[in-house]
Amino acid sequence: MNFEEALTYVTQKIADIRYPKQPARLYEPITYLLAMKGKKIRPALTLLACNLFKEEVHEAVPAALAWEIFHNFTLMHDDLMDKAEIRRGQPSVHKKWDENTAILSGDAMLILSYKTLAKSPAHYLKILLDLFSTTAIEICEGQEYDMQFESRFDVREGEYLNMIRLKTAVMLGACMKSGAIVGDANLKDQNLLYDFGIHLGIAFQIQDDLLDVYGDVSQFGKQIGGDILCNKKTYLLISAWNVANEQDKEELLYWMDVHDQPEEKIRAVTECYNRLKVKERARNLMEDYYWKAIHALDEVDVDADKKIILNDLACELMNRKS
Amino acid sequence: MNFEEALTYVTQKIADIRYPKQPARLYEPITYLLAMKGKKIRPALTLLACNLFKEEVHEAVPAALAWEIFHNFTLMHDDLMDKAEIRRGQPSVHKKWDENTAILSGDAMLILSYKTLAKSPAHYLKILLDLFSTTAIEICEGQEYDMQFESRFDVREGEYLNMIRLKTAVMLGACMKSGAIVGDANLKDQNLLYDFGIHLGIAFQIQDDLLDVYGDVSQFGKQIGGDILCNKKTYLLISAWNVANEQDKEELLYWMDVHDQPEEKIRAVTECYNRLKVKERARNLMEDYYWKAIHALDEVDVDADKKIILNDLACELMNRKS
Repeated sequence: MNFEEALTYVTQKIADIRYPKQPARLYEPITYLLAMKGKKIRPALTLLACNLFKEEVHEAVPAALAWEIFHNFTLMHDDLMDKAEIRRGQPSVHKKWDENTAILSGDAMLILSYKTLAKSPAHYLKILLDLFSTTAIEICEGQEYDMQFESRFDVREGEYLNMIRLKTAVMLGACMKSGAIVGDANLKDQNLLYDFGIHLGIAFQIQDDLLDVYGDVSQFGKQIGGDILCNKKTYLLISAWNVANEQDKEELLYWMDVHDQPEEKIRAVTECYNRLKVKERARNLMEDYYWKAIHALDEVDVDADKKIILNDLACELMNRKS
Repeated sequence: MNFEEALTYVTQKIADIRYPKQPARLYEPITYLLAMKGKKIRPALTLLACNLFKEEVHEAVPAALAWEIFHNFTLMHDDLMDKAEIRRGQPSVHKKWDENTAILSGDAMLILSYKTLAKSPAHYLKILLDLFSTTAIEICEGQEYDMQFESRFDVREGEYLNMIRLKTAVMLGACMKSGAIVGDANLKDQNLLYDFGIHLGIAFQIQDDLLDVYGDVSQFGKQIGGDILCNKKTYLLISAWNVANEQDKEELLYWMDVHDQPEEKIRAVTECYNRLKVKERARNLMEDYYWKAIHALDEVDVDADKKIILNDLACELMNRKS
C-alpha cells in the first residue's frame, strides 16, 4: 500500500460514515467539516504503519478513522477558541452556524471518535483506548499552552517546542503507534514509530512557520507573512526574541503594534529575522527533527523496502512548498 | 450497601482523583467543578445497581466515576451554552475563568471520563464503552433539542418528553445498566434496571418543573417561579400551551414579554396553569413514570430485600421538596 492508496482508502471510508439525520444542527456541522478537502494524512499514517507489519490493514481502519474524526473535532473547537473564521477556504463551523453549535457538535464529534475507535478488534481495544485518551489530553494541554503563549513575550524555545509537540506532534506519533499496535508490532517498534511521528510532527510545524515567511509566493497558496501580520507566536518570532538585543526587541514590539501597513510590517519583521539568523536556526532545527524521524524509522525491524513509502513521505513533507 | 454508604464511597473516590498540576488553567476548573457539593446520585446508582448482584462493588468504581466526570463535563458546557452564571451557588466556569477555558477544560473532562472508564476490568470494557458512547451522544442530542425548543412555541408534549429522556434520563438509565453489567446481571435484568433509571429520570425532571412553581418556598431552596421568570420551556408551559385556547395563549405570550414585574408575572402564569389543570396533569404523568420505574425494579430477578434501597430512593426522590 503506497501513500496515495492509503489516502484513497481512508477518504472512501470517511465518506462512507453515516450519521443520524436528526437533530440536523448537531450532525450537519460534523459532515460539513469531514467532507472538506483536507490532507487526511493522519489516518493514512495509521494504515501505513499497520501495513509495515501486516498485508491486510482493515483492522486498523477504526483507529485511523477515530484519529481523523478527533482531529476534525480539535479543528472545530480550536477555530472557535481562536476566532478563526475560515477553515480550508470555507466558513468555520461557528461562523456558518453559531458558537453553541460549534461547542455541541464538537462534543458529539469527540464522542463519535471514541465510538469509532471502539470498533477496533477487542484484543487491541484497551491499549488503543489508553493511547487515544492520553494523546487526546496532551493535545488539549498543547492548545492551552498555545493560547497562553499568545499573551506572553517570555516564551522560551523549549516551551514552544513542548507546545507544538503536544498540540501537533503527539497525534502523528499516536497515529503511527496505533497502526503498529494493530499490526502486532513489538513494543520497541511501536515506540520507534511513535518517535518517527513525533519528530516528523515537530519538523512539520517548524516548516509551517518557515513557509509562512520564506515560502515561495507562487507555490505557497496563502499570503506570505500572514503569521507576522497577526503577531502569531511562531518558532521564528520566539527564536528571534530569544537572541534579540534591546534595539531588536523595540523594533519587533513597534511593528507588533502596527496594523495599517501590512507590506512594511512584513518587510521590516522579515529583515529583523534575517539579521538575527532566524531562518538558518529554524532550518537547522527542522532538519535535526527530520533526521531524528528518519533515524527512528530506520531502526524499525522490518525490511528496508517496506519503509520506503514512509521515508519518501517524510522527505516530501520536508521539501514541501505549501 | 445503602444509599448513604454509596454516596460516601463515591464522594471519597472522587476526592481521591489526582489531576496533573500543569497547565493549571486546564485542570483547575475540573477540580473546581468536581469539588462542588453536588448530589453525586449518578455514581451512587452505578454502585447500588452493581450491589444488587455482587457484594463487592469496587469493579464498578471506574464506570461510576466516569459517569460523574461526564455529568460534570455536561454541566460545564451546558452552563456556557445556556449562559448560566451560577452553578450550585458559585460562579460557573465560564464566569470564574472565561469561555475558552470552559470549552477546553470541558473537552479535557470528557476525555478524562473515557480515560477513567477504561480502568474498568477488561472483560467489561467493550460493552461499557459502547453504552457510554451511545448514551453520551444521546445526551448531546437532548441538549440540542433543549436549545432548539427555547425558540419554538409549537413543542409537543411527546417532543418535550423525548428531549428530557435524552438530556436527563438516559444517563440515569446507563448508570444503572453499567452497574448491572459489572455485577454480571443477565441482559434482561440489565435492561430492566436501565428502564428503572429512564423512568425515574423522566419523573425526576417533571418533578423539577413542578417544584419550581408549586414547591414549598421554605423547603425549595431556590426562588419559586424562577422558570416562569426566564420563560423556560418546562413541561408545565408546554402542557399549558397544548390545551390553551386563543385567549390563554395571548395571556401567556403577554407575560412572556414582561420582564419588570416578577411577582405579577409569576402569579398570573401560575393562575393560568391552575386554570388549565397543568399541575394535575404533570403530577399524574410524573406518577405514571414513577410507577413504571418501580414496576421495572420489581421485575429484576433478585431478592426483594436487596431492592429496598433503590425502591426507597425512588420513593424519596418522588416526595422530595427540593
